Amino acid sequence: MADVSPLARPFPDLPSIAGARPAVARAHYKQWDRCDLTFVQLEPGTSVAGVLTRSQCASPEVEWCRKALTLGQARALVVNAGNSNAFTGSRGQAAVEAVAARAAAHLSCQPSDIFVASTGVIGVPLPIDKAEAGLEAAFSAPECAWQEAADAIGTTDTFAKGAVQRAVIGDWTVTLTGIIKGSGMIAPDMATMLGFIFTDAAVEPSFLQQLLDRANRRSFSCITVDGDTSTSDTVLAFATGFAGNPALASFDNAGADAFAAALDALCLKLAQLVVRDGEGASKFIEVQVTGATSDASAHRLAMSIANSPLVKTAIAGEDANWGRVVMAVGKAGEPADRDRLSIRFGSTIVARNGCAVEGYDEGPVAEHLSAQEIEIGADLGIGDGRATVWTCDLTHGYISINADYRS
Amino acid sequence: MADVSPLARPFPDLPSIAGARPAVARAHYKQWDRCDLTFVQLEPGTSVAGVLTRSQCASPEVEWCRKALTLGQARALVVNAGNSNAFTGSRGQAAVEAVAARAAAHLSCQPSDIFVASTGVIGVPLPIDKAEAGLEAAFSAPECAWQEAADAIGTTDTFAKGAVQRAVIGDWTVTLTGIIKGSGMIAPDMATMLGFIFTDAAVEPSFLQQLLDRANRRSFSCITVDGDTSTSDTVLAFATGFAGNPALASFDNAGADAFAAALDALCLKLAQLVVRDGEGASKFIEVQVTGATSDASAHRLAMSIANSPLVKTAIAGEDANWGRVVMAVGKAGEPADRDRLSIRFGSTIVARNGCAVEGYDEGPVAEHLSAQEIEIGADLGIGDGRATVWTCDLTHGYISINADYRS
Repeated sequence: MADVSPLARPFPDLPSIAGARPAVARAHYKQWDRCDLTFVQLEPGTSVAGVLTRSQCASPEVEWCRKALTLGQARALVVNAGNSNAFTGSRGQAAVEAVAARAAAHLSCQPSDIFVASTGVIGVPLPIDKAEAGLEAAFSAPECAWQEAADAIGTTDTFAKGAVQRAVIGDWTVTLTGIIKGSGMIAPDMATMLGFIFTDAAVEPSFLQQLLDRANRRSFSCITVDGDTSTSDTVLAFATGFAGNPALASFDNAGADAFAAALDALCLKLAQLVVRDGEGASKFIEVQVTGATSDASAHRLAMSIANSPLVKTAIAGEDANWGRVVMAVGKAGEPADRDRLSIRFGSTIVARNGCAVEGYDEGPVAEHLSAQEIEIGADLGIGDGRATVWTCDLTHGYISINADYRS
Repeated sequence: MADVSPLARPFPDLPSIAGARPAVARAHYKQWDRCDLTFVQLEPGTSVAGVLTRSQCASPEVEWCRKALTLGQARALVVNAGNSNAFTGSRGQAAVEAVAARAAAHLSCQPSDIFVASTGVIGVPLPIDKAEAGLEAAFSAPECAWQEAADAIGTTDTFAKGAVQRAVIGDWTVTLTGIIKGSGMIAPDMATMLGFIFTDAAVEPSFLQQLLDRANRRSFSCITVDGDTSTSDTVLAFATGFAGNPALASFDNAGADAFAAALDALCLKLAQLVVRDGEGASKFIEVQVTGATSDASAHRLAMSIANSPLVKTAIAGEDANWGRVVMAVGKAGEPADRDRLSIRFGSTIVARNGCAVEGYDEGPVAEHLSAQEIEIGADLGIGDGRATVWTCDLTHGYISINADYRS
């Protein structure tokens, strides 16, 4: 196991969610002495929504969830760590079906009520015997803490990642918790590696989906570690309804705005935790693009900066090399006017209107770059479009993790 | 200076080109004891064509060349190394104009006959006094060998890069030589860092442009080191006409096919030399995509593989991690059918029709990956589109060069 990321955050105090019962077990997917199968039982009536990878080589788990999401109901979540089951043909598909069938039989529900996600090596079919034995162990295991589940879903992660938010819906206070895993192969296009959100709020499935799509656009879709989108990215949100509030079905309902805001905040926390565990990361970088022709254009410009290896290595080297930010803006294929472009590190503008700010104070810039939390601003000066994305730096650690790794 | 790339090739024996006279001088753009200004005088009647970066933050040199290329005639090329003059506003533009004016006065020609390219740090205006003094020195310097010019245009390059081709046009044998520089910030979209081609053939400017565009699509546009497209990418081709052949004006002319083939081959050699000097490179990688829905789609799929940090680090680690190739295909946003995709390392197919080839012979794969020249094949199985691109691996060397560098 790699050293814990220097950007790690302690696991927060996550309350249990009525109607959701996590348990973990050892399926022995790899030669390791740890829990690697997570089973979260959900009470009848639980709504579900999800966002999934747009990869053309999606795993059978992703395909399974995509189909099951159309029904909007969930009775359980099964997460396998150590084997992604991606690119395994009909055998991989059979493994997912077997897992869902076994859990459905245990809960006397439909297989389509079972959501399955797997993470780990690509190309090896999930061993059905190990999955079934692991499931049996999980069925009889005691309820566990969310932190144990967060540990059990991790692979190359160096710390357990979770977050909690609360919202008031009329007379009811509802709780949203989430756990997430991810460290490398992170450039979620629709979602991130594996993230799971549980709330006791009552929310209609279609509205829950609308809210999750919205939150996703501002969180998971705004992070990148290495620009490499996974075959298995999955975020699922489960609403058990045990808080007792009248089910939210649209923004016209009292409390919908508060719930949406809480979900947004939760997703953002979870997404940023993935960046904080980016492979080899030593700096957490926020890239703010303003003044672009549209928000979508600003997002693509920000991602061009956040994915540039030259920008990321400059930050690793604490080097105020704003020319590389200019390069990344220029290559993005988005509208830009070189002579109206301004670049900022922290609060210091280092280039304005197409050239360097002469004699800018290098002290605060050097101080900002020596810290762990870096802010890069690029103002295009040609519109009102804006976007913020998050990434980490590119260090020797990333190379060591990925070039020394043997599949 | 970094160690010479392990993938370096010796500088070939480049003949002089009648009508083109290279000379080098010290402009002292940086604190270094080397020639950093190159002046190639071209005889009247020289045709010129060029391909330039599509960056929205292009350097004033690029803008200058783009305008001058519309006239199709050249009398000189000036190349500055150590300062790219990019993102320097009106002062950078004034520097280019001063350089062109000085050279034009020396040759009694129009400033628009002078082509200028610069490479080096972004954001510092090219010092006009140093450029003018360097030019004066070059005017009176003796003609130099192409290798000296190839050295003088380099920056972080670890070896001088040049190539030669010949073609028969009717009764005339013409010669094409080229020099190129580039090592990092290499993902040319329309051209690569700085490349210059000289031929004694007579070729009409518009036809020369057509041929260069064609060659570019198969060479400079098919390489990447780090996916970071530069602000200053420039490839210029000069045809002096001193070979005496009837000027080529279309593919209907005898010898046009042979000249085009020679230009294609020259550009490919030059482009591959840039990959061989990729920052930190230890492996030269050819990515072949077949069976895509179109050639353009195949190119984007190949570039997705070639730019993936996880694929590049796997090759650095000599790891047959074909799952990362699947990931890169899946994320490209191009048509793909997971269950018809096959992956190959060297001549060994390791995955076919959406799953691993069971019991494939790992011996030849391990042997192939331990070599310096790596071939990755991906067959989409859904069409006739094909493309080949070249890249290098991603190693600790890249991080050291770019994170330790101070601007």
